[in-house]
Amino acid sequence: MPERSDILIEALPYIQKYYKKTVVIKYGGNAMINEELSHAVMSDIVLLSLVGVNVVLVHGGGPEISDLLKKTGKESRFINGLRYTDTETMDYVQMVLCGKIGKSLAATINRTGGRALSLCGLDGGMIKAKKLSNDGIDYGLVGEITSIDPRPVLDTISSGYLPVISTVAQGEDADTAYNINSDTAAAKLAISINAEKLILLTDVSGLMNNPDDKDSLIPVVHLSEIPGLIKDGIITGGMIPKIDCCLEAVRHGVKSASILDGRIPHSIILEMLTDEGSGTIIY
Amino acid sequence: MPERSDILIEALPYIQKYYKKTVVIKYGGNAMINEELSHAVMSDIVLLSLVGVNVVLVHGGGPEISDLLKKTGKESRFINGLRYTDTETMDYVQMVLCGKIGKSLAATINRTGGRALSLCGLDGGMIKAKKLSNDGIDYGLVGEITSIDPRPVLDTISSGYLPVISTVAQGEDADTAYNINSDTAAAKLAISINAEKLILLTDVSGLMNNPDDKDSLIPVVHLSEIPGLIKDGIITGGMIPKIDCCLEAVRHGVKSASILDGRIPHSIILEMLTDEGSGTIIY
Amino acid sequence: MPERSDILIEALPYIQKYYKKTVVIKYGGNAMINEELSHAVMSDIVLLSLVGVNVVLVHGGGPEISDLLKKTGKESRFINGLRYTDTETMDYVQMVLCGKIGKSLAATINRTGGRALSLCGLDGGMIKAKKLSNDGIDYGLVGEITSIDPRPVLDTISSGYLPVISTVAQGEDADTAYNINSDTAAAKLAISINAEKLILLTDVSGLMNNPDDKDSLIPVVHLSEIPGLIKDGIITGGMIPKIDCCLEAVRHGVKSASILDGRIPHSIILEMLTDEGSGTIIY
Amino acid sequence: MPERSDILIEALPYIQKYYKKTVVIKYGGNAMINEELSHAVMSDIVLLSLVGVNVVLVHGGGPEISDLLKKTGKESRFINGLRYTDTETMDYVQMVLCGKIGKSLAATINRTGGRALSLCGLDGGMIKAKKLSNDGIDYGLVGEITSIDPRPVLDTISSGYLPVISTVAQGEDADTAYNINSDTAAAKLAISINAEKLILLTDVSGLMNNPDDKDSLIPVVHLSEIPGLIKDGIITGGMIPKIDCCLEAVRHGVKSASILDGRIPHSIILEMLTDEGSGTIIY
Amino acid sequence: MPERSDILIEALPYIQKYYKKTVVIKYGGNAMINEELSHAVMSDIVLLSLVGVNVVLVHGGGPEISDLLKKTGKESRFINGLRYTDTETMDYVQMVLCGKIGKSLAATINRTGGRALSLCGLDGGMIKAKKLSNDGIDYGLVGEITSIDPRPVLDTISSGYLPVISTVAQGEDADTAYNINSDTAAAKLAISINAEKLILLTDVSGLMNNPDDKDSLIPVVHLSEIPGLIKDGIITGGMIPKIDCCLEAVRHGVKSASILDGRIPHSIILEMLTDEGSGTIIY
Amino acid sequence: MPERSDILIEALPYIQKYYKKTVVIKYGGNAMINEELSHAVMSDIVLLSLVGVNVVLVHGGGPEISDLLKKTGKESRFINGLRYTDTETMDYVQMVLCGKIGKSLAATINRTGGRALSLCGLDGGMIKAKKLSNDGIDYGLVGEITSIDPRPVLDTISSGYLPVISTVAQGEDADTAYNINSDTAAAKLAISINAEKLILLTDVSGLMNNPDDKDSLIPVVHLSEIPGLIKDGIITGGMIPKIDCCLEAVRHGVKSASILDGRIPHSIILEMLTDEGSGTIIY
Repeated sequence: MPERSDILIEALPYIQKYYKKTVVIKYGGNAMINEELSHAVMSDIVLLSLVGVNVVLVHGGGPEISDLLKKTGKESRFINGLRYTDTETMDYVQMVLCGKIGKSLAATINRTGGRALSLCGLDGGMIKAKKLSNDGIDYGLVGEITSIDPRPVLDTISSGYLPVISTVAQGEDADTAYNINSDTAAAKLAISINAEKLILLTDVSGLMNNPDDKDSLIPVVHLSEIPGLIKDGIITGGMIPKIDCCLEAVRHGVKSASILDGRIPHSIILEMLTDEGSGTIIY
Repeated sequence: MPERSDILIEALPYIQKYYKKTVVIKYGGNAMINEELSHAVMSDIVLLSLVGVNVVLVHGGGPEISDLLKKTGKESRFINGLRYTDTETMDYVQMVLCGKIGKSLAATINRTGGRALSLCGLDGGMIKAKKLSNDGIDYGLVGEITSIDPRPVLDTISSGYLPVISTVAQGEDADTAYNINSDTAAAKLAISINAEKLILLTDVSGLMNNPDDKDSLIPVVHLSEIPGLIKDGIITGGMIPKIDCCLEAVRHGVKSASILDGRIPHSIILEMLTDEGSGTIIY
Repeated sequence: MPERSDILIEALPYIQKYYKKTVVIKYGGNAMINEELSHAVMSDIVLLSLVGVNVVLVHGGGPEISDLLKKTGKESRFINGLRYTDTETMDYVQMVLCGKIGKSLAATINRTGGRALSLCGLDGGMIKAKKLSNDGIDYGLVGEITSIDPRPVLDTISSGYLPVISTVAQGEDADTAYNINSDTAAAKLAISINAEKLILLTDVSGLMNNPDDKDSLIPVVHLSEIPGLIKDGIITGGMIPKIDCCLEAVRHGVKSASILDGRIPHSIILEMLTDEGSGTIIY
Repeated sequence: MPERSDILIEALPYIQKYYKKTVVIKYGGNAMINEELSHAVMSDIVLLSLVGVNVVLVHGGGPEISDLLKKTGKESRFINGLRYTDTETMDYVQMVLCGKIGKSLAATINRTGGRALSLCGLDGGMIKAKKLSNDGIDYGLVGEITSIDPRPVLDTISSGYLPVISTVAQGEDADTAYNINSDTAAAKLAISINAEKLILLTDVSGLMNNPDDKDSLIPVVHLSEIPGLIKDGIITGGMIPKIDCCLEAVRHGVKSASILDGRIPHSIILEMLTDEGSGTIIY
Repeated sequence: MPERSDILIEALPYIQKYYKKTVVIKYGGNAMINEELSHAVMSDIVLLSLVGVNVVLVHGGGPEISDLLKKTGKESRFINGLRYTDTETMDYVQMVLCGKIGKSLAATINRTGGRALSLCGLDGGMIKAKKLSNDGIDYGLVGEITSIDPRPVLDTISSGYLPVISTVAQGEDADTAYNINSDTAAAKLAISINAEKLILLTDVSGLMNNPDDKDSLIPVVHLSEIPGLIKDGIITGGMIPKIDCCLEAVRHGVKSASILDGRIPHSIILEMLTDEGSGTIIY
Repeated sequence: MPERSDILIEALPYIQKYYKKTVVIKYGGNAMINEELSHAVMSDIVLLSLVGVNVVLVHGGGPEISDLLKKTGKESRFINGLRYTDTETMDYVQMVLCGKIGKSLAATINRTGGRALSLCGLDGGMIKAKKLSNDGIDYGLVGEITSIDPRPVLDTISSGYLPVISTVAQGEDADTAYNINSDTAAAKLAISINAEKLILLTDVSGLMNNPDDKDSLIPVVHLSEIPGLIKDGIITGGMIPKIDCCLEAVRHGVKSASILDGRIPHSIILEMLTDEGSGTIIY
């Protein structure tokens, strides 16, 4: 019994801290595919919005894009891990992200007790992009963000809705849509709306001193420690771009960024409302 | 020269009349397929919004749904003119309407100088529907509207955006999306937001006394005259459900409803800002 | 770990439920005398106010009145358990309640992170009373409340302060202060400000089916069950007037009233933010 | 038919441009004397105010002053084209401008569907003036403006009225009214209220390259071109002080100033809502 | 010295009573002609407006109309004490009232430290009238009020100005101005703006029991006493229509109406801020 | 009679000057003990608040502290005129000031027609103090003010109440209350809320050139004259610290400070609303 009150007393200042503050959550991977995990994430998000946290949910693609491509007989081609996106592919990407996943997430949140609107970078001209230029390789309509107009998200929040953002961007000067990376989009959006926190849900357990030792999670990292951690091989592989997103966010005014293990149920609530948290937080 | 000032002097009171009033425009058919007509419609809509008219754009499907179905090898089946919609088909319908057409219309309006957000009936739980029950025939996930929550549209307008509405609805008590008729959706939406006017863009020239005589357009019809016009065979065929939508709107508080020939460029501007208009108006 | 998130997930809807709602807490007895318990109560109150609950703290007298009377050599006289209050005694009562306890509670709350103002029934003419008339017995300046003007409490809340209320009342038509019962004052104040909840901190464990069996606590009582519980001898003695206060509050619009065991640390937080609560709640 | 929509489509951006912006129109000459022209001006003004343009109407004197002087047997004396104004004459000037013309213009606007209030420089201490000092010549109570307090005009506009301004000013430090030039007053008033546009209605056809050639109207002049046009004898005679008023207005923040031919019906509407306009505009 | 504080202590509750309340003062007669009295009236009015009383000043004509008529050689004709008003006379009346007296009163108030705007019944369509029909006699353009739109006066007050009202009215359905009685106009205006008080400045000493006995002033009259006072010959002659104006005002919601002797300096201040007042007040 | 209007006309600009301005009145000495004088002060304060002056009443102790100490047998000890305040004494001081005098003043003001709340330096953490350090002498819990948070007073005023302030302060970093000088507290409070005026009620007749000559009162003193007046022996003894309080207030933004003879009835009203005033004013 006393433990119960201690947990609550520990949580209350966090709830106050995040009251009317904005938290951008990038949602993808296992947490999106596994039904139970997905249900826990939706429930966490709705609970947070009930106690006054302004959540912005940015989602990625998942296997549904490949499914549609397969059904239409369109071949998937990857270059350096990026899907080569010709005009027809882009059409399918937009249809899946904006028409299927985004709208269905909004519908789920609404059924769970929240009030969500699903938008993408085309709405209100929110996200502008240009063709990704990376060592002269042509990825087709893969884009990099050039600017974000935060008003559609801010207006949606101030009207009392939870914005769900599909990461399709508007071409800067032509009538073209671009496929953009959703971790990066989440980070840049968090900066543009001056968010209190950025959360990236991943399929790994935060930053580990020893990946084999579950208890070696590094709970807090300061900006200045990151170069050392990379040098020491503790930040490696797919973790590097995620850490980079966090770094960029924190450097541009987002108070903190967390990388959470999306495979732990309710990791969002634990990270936001307990002293120990559930992943690695970067200040 | 004097004619020029006369046209303007005639238009100004209309502009005042519609200032800060809402007009729901159902957009479909030729006006959506023909590029020049489509450009004129977008331009009319943006101009109206620039002078303070709150435009809500409701769009239908068009040939893109059939295109995607064909590409995925999914057979299109029609019963009494309605597409039989199984779960897989519904997924494709939602992807095309919400992910492709809606978002692209918003992008076009934004590029033309407006500020649009694309929503559908799933956003904010806006449109609720149940399975269409029509003489015991099973149309699959074709739905009929059971309720509309106007707040997402009203909030979007009051934040300064032009809402583009894709006609996909949320199942009333299950996690299902429904395919709904967009003329009906436009009419019911107009009622729910207490619109000043409903405009249905069609592929015919309004109501004609004699379909072969271009000059026999009936510019104004009063509610009470409609039964007679049906009896006299002047309202027939595909015009009947459109007239029914107008009737329902006008009976429930929408001030007027117009059926316009979407094949005439700028028919919206002409209808709204000139004494003679461009189609048939129902009070 | 999972337990932790469950406790939080259970608490969040309660936090939302009480957000910007008012809770009147009557504070007295052991919870006021024992330093550790007193510290837990202050901490609970400040935490609740941090997450947006409007707490109003009503306090009683305690042993400090008797202390001052003893020091001044003024004899304490009790009739039917009520202190006979002559003019001189009333002066001492007012000095202790309004000058010592009320102001010191406000100071403690302020040091703990809240923002409190200490008021009494004389401030803004808030509580009016007349001489208690009870079977013709003369209790001196013991008063019964005739009216409450809720504005001083409401104004204090809306300026962002936590009001601490000392239960001294203004005589209705003469320049006299009256000593009033603080349980009753808390109940009537809760009614007058349309509080969401009334909490009475006592020195017993809520309502018990069997006072010897710690586990026989009755967690929820409905208004209609109370006469039966009195007849069955389950509500007896000093519990009867406390139950009466709760009854009156709930009958006049307060959503619920709870009798808590002030000897359990953090019983307020447990009652308000967990499903099981910590005392007996009356709807 | 298409022409009609083109004219409207051309006009709409102008309507948006002037929405809630202020336009000061100096009204005098033929447009004031000829009944049909006067009716067209009033109608233009009311229409503009209906679509949200804030019109301020500044009027001059016309023949009615001379009429009254003649009736009272008071001799009219002119020095360098300016009426010598002794105290008695000033009384008559004030009576005609403020009591007759101003109030009657307001009455006409009100009957035409607008809502006008007629004020003069004495109201709210709006226009302050001192004796005109010009080469030592004594013109009596002819004044030059020393300061303008824009609040009476701004307050009248924000209360929803169209201010009609008679050009009588308050003496700076004595109890004297002054007769002031109404073109200058219109320009200075436009500056003081930060107007979007100043329009001077005249009895000539704007600036002409060749006064005999109706088609040689110069539609647009930039500030920097004016000295050249004076040198070339294109700006001459009575046009010079009018151009000077426009110059001063544009130099002090008024976005543009137009000299219109008041003899063309609806020249105001044509100037403000068409690409070609109807007179000469100075940026 | 003590007397000084008594007078102030007596006045303060009156100042509070009239704070942000509206008082309509009809100004005419000696108080308008005599320079010292006029100065005392202006000073009273400005002081009242400084301490938050909303004063509306309604003025009549005085000898200046006759002066102008004489100067123009226009004969003055009176029928039953009313000036027969043909079109030319009406022009002169309007010029003197609206152009001369109203504007000059506003100028004087502005110089004394107030902020006045001078309006008449034509401004904003404020006062509508029709031809006076009285026993079939033709008085020309003498009008009786048919309706008052209080908005121009209320808007002027809420913008912080003191409205000075010249009693010229707009013909109901034609382009004609009417000459109206200013006592009646003041009473009807007081009703339409729900004034706290109506004050009529006259050239007699309020209601006297015995006109020869200066000390027989009747300070307070209740509505019900008036018929008796007329029967007893105490209310007679020119006092009857003034009493009628007061009666109408008080019957339609104005809290009180006073008839003051305009020949006593500062009679307005004395009436409004002292217990005894300076004239006859009607409740 | 004329005198009456003169007094009022003289007072009105003062009333306007103080409208919605704040005046801090330090109340103590004879004006607090003598019942008639006390009644005049309360009446002055309520009248001022009725006409829109925001009065803040700061009160001192008086004989009631000594009374309580005597009754409890606690010895009063004075060092250099300051009461040595041990913990027990401080308890009695707090009880008398905050519990007895403050609350009773609030009650009296409420009965007289005002709306007062009684606060002390502990409420909202308003007045912070530390132990007085004066030449190494130990005065116990006599404190000197270290900071004032003006919000509790400002919030109370803006909620429409008259704050009555008891001069007990919160220890800066410990749970201790301090006894502070009330003249100093009034001055520092006046500075912190940017008061228009500070008034100290005393038992002497303002500053006198010759204390034996009642007519030698110095009505106005400028800051720069004070050193000379001290040198000349005109400011002496107990007047020096009072003058110092005024000096500090005026130097830090309070517009003026007055020392009034609390023995003259209504000296506050006379000082604030007449040209001559009733004491010595320091600019």
